[in-house]
Amino acid sequence: MKKIYVAIIGGSGYGGGELLRLLLFHDNVEISFVTSRRNAGKFVYEVHPNLRNLTELKFVNKPIEEIADEVDLLFFATPNGVAMQEAPKIIGKTRIIDTSADFRLKNLEEFKHYYGKHECPELIEKFAYGLTEFNKETIKKARYIANPGCFATGALLAIIPLAKEGLLKNLVIDSKTGSSGSGADPSITTHHPERAMDFRAYNVLSHRHYLEIYQELKKFNTNVDFSFVPHSTPMIRGIFTTCYSFLDKKITKEELSDIYRKYYANEYFVRLVESPRCSIVAGTNFCDIGFACNENRVVVMSAIDNLVKGDAGQAIQNMNVMFNFDEKTGLEFPGMHP
Amino acid sequence: MKKIYVAIIGGSGYGGGELLRLLLFHDNVEISFVTSRRNAGKFVYEVHPNLRNLTELKFVNKPIEEIADEVDLLFFATPNGVAMQEAPKIIGKTRIIDTSADFRLKNLEEFKHYYGKHECPELIEKFAYGLTEFNKETIKKARYIANPGCFATGALLAIIPLAKEGLLKNLVIDSKTGSSGSGADPSITTHHPERAMDFRAYNVLSHRHYLEIYQELKKFNTNVDFSFVPHSTPMIRGIFTTCYSFLDKKITKEELSDIYRKYYANEYFVRLVESPRCSIVAGTNFCDIGFACNENRVVVMSAIDNLVKGDAGQAIQNMNVMFNFDEKTGLEFPGMHP
Amino acid sequence: MKKIYVAIIGGSGYGGGELLRLLLFHDNVEISFVTSRRNAGKFVYEVHPNLRNLTELKFVNKPIEEIADEVDLLFFATPNGVAMQEAPKIIGKTRIIDTSADFRLKNLEEFKHYYGKHECPELIEKFAYGLTEFNKETIKKARYIANPGCFATGALLAIIPLAKEGLLKNLVIDSKTGSSGSGADPSITTHHPERAMDFRAYNVLSHRHYLEIYQELKKFNTNVDFSFVPHSTPMIRGIFTTCYSFLDKKITKEELSDIYRKYYANEYFVRLVESPRCSIVAGTNFCDIGFACNENRVVVMSAIDNLVKGDAGQAIQNMNVMFNFDEKTGLEFPGMHP
Amino acid sequence: MKKIYVAIIGGSGYGGGELLRLLLFHDNVEISFVTSRRNAGKFVYEVHPNLRNLTELKFVNKPIEEIADEVDLLFFATPNGVAMQEAPKIIGKTRIIDTSADFRLKNLEEFKHYYGKHECPELIEKFAYGLTEFNKETIKKARYIANPGCFATGALLAIIPLAKEGLLKNLVIDSKTGSSGSGADPSITTHHPERAMDFRAYNVLSHRHYLEIYQELKKFNTNVDFSFVPHSTPMIRGIFTTCYSFLDKKITKEELSDIYRKYYANEYFVRLVESPRCSIVAGTNFCDIGFACNENRVVVMSAIDNLVKGDAGQAIQNMNVMFNFDEKTGLEFPGMHP
Repeated sequence: MKKIYVAIIGGSGYGGGELLRLLLFHDNVEISFVTSRRNAGKFVYEVHPNLRNLTELKFVNKPIEEIADEVDLLFFATPNGVAMQEAPKIIGKTRIIDTSADFRLKNLEEFKHYYGKHECPELIEKFAYGLTEFNKETIKKARYIANPGCFATGALLAIIPLAKEGLLKNLVIDSKTGSSGSGADPSITTHHPERAMDFRAYNVLSHRHYLEIYQELKKFNTNVDFSFVPHSTPMIRGIFTTCYSFLDKKITKEELSDIYRKYYANEYFVRLVESPRCSIVAGTNFCDIGFACNENRVVVMSAIDNLVKGDAGQAIQNMNVMFNFDEKTGLEFPGMHP
Repeated sequence: MKKIYVAIIGGSGYGGGELLRLLLFHDNVEISFVTSRRNAGKFVYEVHPNLRNLTELKFVNKPIEEIADEVDLLFFATPNGVAMQEAPKIIGKTRIIDTSADFRLKNLEEFKHYYGKHECPELIEKFAYGLTEFNKETIKKARYIANPGCFATGALLAIIPLAKEGLLKNLVIDSKTGSSGSGADPSITTHHPERAMDFRAYNVLSHRHYLEIYQELKKFNTNVDFSFVPHSTPMIRGIFTTCYSFLDKKITKEELSDIYRKYYANEYFVRLVESPRCSIVAGTNFCDIGFACNENRVVVMSAIDNLVKGDAGQAIQNMNVMFNFDEKTGLEFPGMHP
Repeated sequence: MKKIYVAIIGGSGYGGGELLRLLLFHDNVEISFVTSRRNAGKFVYEVHPNLRNLTELKFVNKPIEEIADEVDLLFFATPNGVAMQEAPKIIGKTRIIDTSADFRLKNLEEFKHYYGKHECPELIEKFAYGLTEFNKETIKKARYIANPGCFATGALLAIIPLAKEGLLKNLVIDSKTGSSGSGADPSITTHHPERAMDFRAYNVLSHRHYLEIYQELKKFNTNVDFSFVPHSTPMIRGIFTTCYSFLDKKITKEELSDIYRKYYANEYFVRLVESPRCSIVAGTNFCDIGFACNENRVVVMSAIDNLVKGDAGQAIQNMNVMFNFDEKTGLEFPGMHP
Repeated sequence: MKKIYVAIIGGSGYGGGELLRLLLFHDNVEISFVTSRRNAGKFVYEVHPNLRNLTELKFVNKPIEEIADEVDLLFFATPNGVAMQEAPKIIGKTRIIDTSADFRLKNLEEFKHYYGKHECPELIEKFAYGLTEFNKETIKKARYIANPGCFATGALLAIIPLAKEGLLKNLVIDSKTGSSGSGADPSITTHHPERAMDFRAYNVLSHRHYLEIYQELKKFNTNVDFSFVPHSTPMIRGIFTTCYSFLDKKITKEELSDIYRKYYANEYFVRLVESPRCSIVAGTNFCDIGFACNENRVVVMSAIDNLVKGDAGQAIQNMNVMFNFDEKTGLEFPGMHP
């Protein structure tokens, strides 16, 4: 069986932990390196206790150029801003999947607005946008992937079919995320006493995933503007996205159903369901999508695990496509009930 | 100090429990009767253990006509359908505040669509709609109050100012409710293993509070149609409502702020805040409202406790207004942090 | 690769759902039948939505004798009381693993005390007690297995090493369980508003797993009596058990460590850790064990997933042992963090 | 009505926030000062948003000597270590209730073991231990109170009656706390993704409240040694304590009941119940106690809110006793259900 060698840069966070969890059991993958400055020398199970007894891998702190020489693929699971500093050192040496935001936005001005000055603008165009279901042919040939953001993944999978059919108008995207979306570092908004029985909005009309969604929608629809509000819910994993569109004409549930089947009937990781639920997709790479309509008003909902389909899982799905592995390999965990 | 005597019909549920919790400490109120068929003869603290040692009240099962003769005010905290059967027996004998949906909808066809045939259509018009902040003069003179639904309260307090200013267009109301909104009887959607780490939508574009909101908005704005989707979150108390409007012109945060201050500056129970949070209003009668805008897009958010401002608290606020007590009496619990 | 055919009797509950989740991906197993009276004719994914798109299996309602003729192994995932009625019809026809309590207690009087009259006392002795780690040789040869209770599994794995070394005295077993332990049917104790922010004890000194633990401990230690109190915590999956023993002499952490390594060094599913955590074993077949001591006082703690190591997972582990498969097959899910 | 003036030193934490929440509505109290170095100049509602619109108090940073001159009572709601540095500056000027651990332990060696060198050992004996129910006569006359720790309160109220009756033997104290017990500062153990579905033990046999419980038990019983293990549960407020004793003789439930009624029949804040529940006492000053026995084995359970009866509420109860107010004043919030 064909094996590739991979490295994970930044393996201490939740995204890096998910890459480890999934790749350790991937039939075609050998993890050669997992890096962490803070935890170099420690066993990965000291940081990710779910991996105890399952691997003797240790975190290393090693120059990225040396790592790149020895692997077929390198994942950046680092915070925003790291990949754009490191990528120039290794470009051409190995394939890259960057799960941060560094190479998603193609417009430098927009990037600057949210993330500051880009460190290697000349590389941005080399990175293919890794929304697997809608970019598979490009990903197959790509050497560098900008893996989509979690909110963007949930929203785009819900509404691209409408966008492609010209059915987006006065779009509203109302997203609700679990606490793992804030990462492994404690903060006041993820402090259990403040979060566990709360619900609130944040970055109202000003979240940086807005531009990522905007950029991708523009490809299918010339006139999209929308309101996007993310909210914090007291679950751990999951993003639920409710999208609203007001059409110029009536539409029926059957017509909607035909549209969604057209785009997703052959997509293993997108399931069309009556009522998407975050708990059902937790731990999995599935995106469950449901929809409803009334006269000219349409609602489309999606549920994903922000750390899997919204991060590490989609990254591995992209890897599978790049290396011509079965798209499902290593991603078959069915989720739990309850 | 002036005292009134009240009865609570249906005191076993969560709404009835909240009436008890609040009225037991209300300076102007004596609870004469609390009824329950199922629990007649039991101490109320056997059903609501938070009231242990605080009252020796027992549930009774007594003809409503006899109860009505002895009280100044009667609360229906019964499931939908009970008040419309019982009200005709006592109309004229005592004041009534009905916390169920029986007398909210004024259009019989619309009522029938969601709730079936109305048992006493002739009484519907006698009931004033109890959204205190916007109907105070009527409530002062009313003998019968239809207390608003929880979703309707959260949505209407958020958007009536916009409606009154003619600023609602392509309205979206996205609501998120805690599990206590489903009542005290266990069901699969409130089964802890299914609910605790889940997020989902329900009654998408078909929830019955739609018509209640629609009816009230119509009073201020001739052309309102909107999408309304309620969602289940894993908290116990609280409704968070995010409302989206697309205006025909740009608006600034200052203009929005002026509008909301105009309507709420003198309303004790509405607080204008940067970021409404359900945990902060839990247990209280407050409705915290926040807003944001971007060009022509407006977002207004509200947070209430569904059992208090969305139910028993607002009922008591209406009672205070009806009997000319200080509006805050019995409702001063400040909430907890955390 | 060797394949066996299995049936799951009672596949609608959480335990049956876990058998399905795990066996669908087991390399050596084909699920021939999954039964449910209530859901016969439905796809299993209609009841267990995590299995959507992963299997086209449907629930059937078919005489158990016919089922037994066609399978190598039959799992009872039925409520207490069903297996003892059905087992006599199929004994000798197929192997059985019963996950209910029907064949665990060998003393008829004790059984009767908690569960009523036994329907087939003559079969009780045929069932081997399936605590895999301590009964492997018997299980290898067994045709019938009584799978241990969830509390018993957590407690016994924690304390049998002490029992075998004669170090149990004035034993206390304090257990804390998640809500999935109460099963898939809603009830007031698992009603989300009552459970989500609560902690309480139940069946204090009178839980029926007491006798199961007692029976097994007796095998190693002639004089064991203990206090056992189970508690309800607001998590979904997991049992945390804290066991306390007062020795007649001092003991050191090193001595304790030696004892636990002696019994578990070669057991894949028991991990000795500093601090067992329920979240880390959720979804997995691991039992994480930790311990501490101070003078003559010893504390041993274990964390398991009640539905996996405490139910379906251990059943499959027993199946693997019976059929001489690698003990880990189908049970390699590493758990999630977070 | 008699009014006293009080100051709260350290009002930004959860304990300080609870003092504010409760004292703002206390009929006999005026809050003169609330201090915070970090938040000086801010409105208290900026830190405790539940108090918005309810007070215009601001945090100050002012020399404690000046504060002491102007108040009748000063609360320390500061982290351990602050009160022992500040108390010498104000001793004799005002009454003090210290909610930290600084003056609880009377043995300097024991104090040093957990907390380091004591800064004012000469003052330790001046502080009365504020377990209200068992020290009321002393508290009435005290000028300085060391308010008990949260675990100690829950454990001592459960077992002192047994201790006084000579019925403690081979005592085990198994405690479970909500996340607010860790305070307002985020940390990894209260990070929502790590805590929300977890259960674990910590400081096993080494928690510093051990010595506090030990010291108090010694007063009633010459021979007490015990095992104490605190655990983290995923609720916000609450400590549930399960205590186990093995007597030398059999005891009946009636005898137990008589014992507990003897000590608590006239104590408003201790309720004897069948099944104590943390959710029912949340926000209140109640300690609910239940018990069971079997032959010679006894189990006593208590539920308190760690921030109220385990902290600010008991401090105010002590204040009420010191100043001869009705013990219940300001502490009548009945809790919520659900």
